[in-house]
Amino acid sequence: MTPLAEEERQESFDEIRKLIRQRQVRAARDYLTNLLDPDVGDLLKEMTLEERLTAFSLLPKDRASDIFTFLPSEQQEELLDNLKGELLTSILNEMEPDDRAFILEDLPDEFIEKLLSVMRPEERKHTEELMSYPPETVGRIYTPHYISLRAEWTVGQALAHIREKGAEAELLNMLFVVDPANQLIDDLPLRKLILANPEDSVKSLLDGNYVALKATDDRETAVTTMGRYDMVALPVVNENNTLLGIVTFDDVADIALEETTEDFHKAGSVAPLATSYSEAGIWALFQKRFGWLIILVLVNLLSSGVIAAYEDTLASMIALAFFIPLLIDSGGNTGSQSAILLIRALATGDIKMSQWASALGKELLVGLILGLAMGLASSLLGLFRGGFEIGLIVGLSMMAIVLVANLIGAILPFLLTKLGIDPAVAGSPLITSIADTVGLLIYFSIATMVLAGGVISA
Amino acid sequence: MTPLAEEERQESFDEIRKLIRQRQVRAARDYLTNLLDPDVGDLLKEMTLEERLTAFSLLPKDRASDIFTFLPSEQQEELLDNLKGELLTSILNEMEPDDRAFILEDLPDEFIEKLLSVMRPEERKHTEELMSYPPETVGRIYTPHYISLRAEWTVGQALAHIREKGAEAELLNMLFVVDPANQLIDDLPLRKLILANPEDSVKSLLDGNYVALKATDDRETAVTTMGRYDMVALPVVNENNTLLGIVTFDDVADIALEETTEDFHKAGSVAPLATSYSEAGIWALFQKRFGWLIILVLVNLLSSGVIAAYEDTLASMIALAFFIPLLIDSGGNTGSQSAILLIRALATGDIKMSQWASALGKELLVGLILGLAMGLASSLLGLFRGGFEIGLIVGLSMMAIVLVANLIGAILPFLLTKLGIDPAVAGSPLITSIADTVGLLIYFSIATMVLAGGVISA
Repeated sequence: MTPLAEEERQESFDEIRKLIRQRQVRAARDYLTNLLDPDVGDLLKEMTLEERLTAFSLLPKDRASDIFTFLPSEQQEELLDNLKGELLTSILNEMEPDDRAFILEDLPDEFIEKLLSVMRPEERKHTEELMSYPPETVGRIYTPHYISLRAEWTVGQALAHIREKGAEAELLNMLFVVDPANQLIDDLPLRKLILANPEDSVKSLLDGNYVALKATDDRETAVTTMGRYDMVALPVVNENNTLLGIVTFDDVADIALEETTEDFHKAGSVAPLATSYSEAGIWALFQKRFGWLIILVLVNLLSSGVIAAYEDTLASMIALAFFIPLLIDSGGNTGSQSAILLIRALATGDIKMSQWASALGKELLVGLILGLAMGLASSLLGLFRGGFEIGLIVGLSMMAIVLVANLIGAILPFLLTKLGIDPAVAGSPLITSIADTVGLLIYFSIATMVLAGGVISA
Repeated sequence: MTPLAEEERQESFDEIRKLIRQRQVRAARDYLTNLLDPDVGDLLKEMTLEERLTAFSLLPKDRASDIFTFLPSEQQEELLDNLKGELLTSILNEMEPDDRAFILEDLPDEFIEKLLSVMRPEERKHTEELMSYPPETVGRIYTPHYISLRAEWTVGQALAHIREKGAEAELLNMLFVVDPANQLIDDLPLRKLILANPEDSVKSLLDGNYVALKATDDRETAVTTMGRYDMVALPVVNENNTLLGIVTFDDVADIALEETTEDFHKAGSVAPLATSYSEAGIWALFQKRFGWLIILVLVNLLSSGVIAAYEDTLASMIALAFFIPLLIDSGGNTGSQSAILLIRALATGDIKMSQWASALGKELLVGLILGLAMGLASSLLGLFRGGFEIGLIVGLSMMAIVLVANLIGAILPFLLTKLGIDPAVAGSPLITSIADTVGLLIYFSIATMVLAGGVISA
């Protein structure tokens, strides 16, 4: 059975719904068992609560908890509130501790207590441990279901140990060698064990090269470290180098996706959503957007202030108004470009904070060339529309605005990072609003100077 | 040895450079061998060509080709041009075929021929095969170094086969079961083999659930499929379901990062860069940005056209000019927010194209509430600054502009996708420029109407 294509989903959904309604238990179970977990999740999402409860009672125990993690958070909460006895217990117990902690963290305290009370003591302990770390740290996302080996074992002993304990581990591809005090000595890919001679010692396979995370590290560290060193799992240790658990590539991929979405939203001046866009309600979306819009209005008022200050100039030469959108938008666009380039380069580690001088030098040059090209083009436009003086004003203004806005866009991401603020907020809306004010100031200053000069020479 | 911290890099660099200059071959080799590949890559990046050549001659053969892939593309080209005889041959032969195809694709044809001629026939064949697929397809990124099993084997036979062939495989965690014609039957995690009884048949472990990619699929399909099904490797087949090779999680992670960077750049109206920002030259950056700036100037000219059309209204009531930046920027900002939210939701699959109606309905409501709130706030501002009429004009305009710009931002990503254009280009600069024109039209229309009404009632 291959994954469901988009166009097969409706058909599948109608089929499984029919089977559930007609209480054809065995057929429904077989149908669901033949699909992959994310696809079953997609089908369940569309059902009524009652159908969903029936579907969960039909799923094999070991898959039910995995499929549960693919549902939207409100549906998860609703299910936890409505699932009965053994089924609730088994879903909670079978779930990976990191998934469980993630689901529980948004629930009310009494509800969490109720759920913890039906878990196996061991699972309860793991969950409480994970939830004791601050949100968005590595401590929240590790699983204690790893396999550790001892350096003095032979490869044969190690493989026997893996066969015995492997069923409970989240991942066997990477094993961890510890001392009797559970202090981490090295990591060891399963591959090396498989290819080694059974009589070799585990110790002989170690290279002493490993990368570990601390439980208190920001979870973004897990994303960058795993990407940099191409690992499927990273060990998590406490401050004494004691092995606490492992972080696996699938969880890290989910986090990377979430963090990137947050960066996109910030660059569009939207405060990070707690859920996905499709799950977010109207009111939540309003709240995440209104604050930024008001902040930007305050910045825009500066632009209005500049216009007010030059109202007489503008009234006496209304032809200047024609070029306002062209000039200030070009500034905003250029600034947005350099800001986005540097926000992304900083986020991916392509550019480091220490390289600010070379980056600004580069943008100074690019801005200069862009300014010359844009200035020349728009001076022709000005000449054509309003004569020599307007052409001169518009050309000079465009050149200066593009150059300055480009530098503002390049400086702001570095400045914000230095101030401990996520540079992603220096996205287009903020840069555009700032560039507009600066653009108007430059335009009217140059216009006043040229026009005054014109009056003198006349 | 744990990975190099950022602050240790300079020290490490000085140390290794000193050893290389003093020709302390053995010490330099030991020093490099104790570091992880990406860290060695970082140190080599900063060296002169001569030092880099020496460093490569010191590295163990099997690591040299991995470390090579961490260098910027110009340095790779330079090295390929300067490395001699056996070292060049071994680096080329040891490299994974997908990395090799990626490096070769940007080189001039005669140079590619020269490099192909020194490779082992088998590696040369793989490389030519990969390079026969269009760029950005799955065909370019698969490796033929996988392990296939036969369903009729026992687990013991399968493990013996893995021990024999495993050293050449890129990854052992996922194995692939094929028939005698090499047609794919199923995938099988190594984990299941390890935990099974050696006398069991491979067939008894198969579940018939697998996900395969076609060589002609877009490489973005690899990213979304791997993320959805949490796989470390996916099989790549041709149109007859014959297994060609596998795509691994580390390559897919690199592609995901590149594709996301492209989306960011597009959302900032920068044409995709061929290299990273840090590697891109001044001229390349100019070219990737100037085209979009000129397109946006053409859109901005529409705004200027609106101002020209209403020049008399503006001249007769110059106080209207004060609110221009405030109104048009608020429209641009609101439109940017909805555009970014939907661009990202479409990119991650959170929202599907078929859900356009519900997404637009949501944005209609959010836009209405935002419009009411922003309209109320700015009418007070207008009242305070210019009296009742201005307050009315500004309040009504703000409400209409926010509502309309929000809808434009929401519609454009769907419309562009439908037209086969990447919706990411509907980022802030484009939306802002469009929203400005629409905003000015709305503002001056409402102003003319209210002022005309005022004249009549007076």
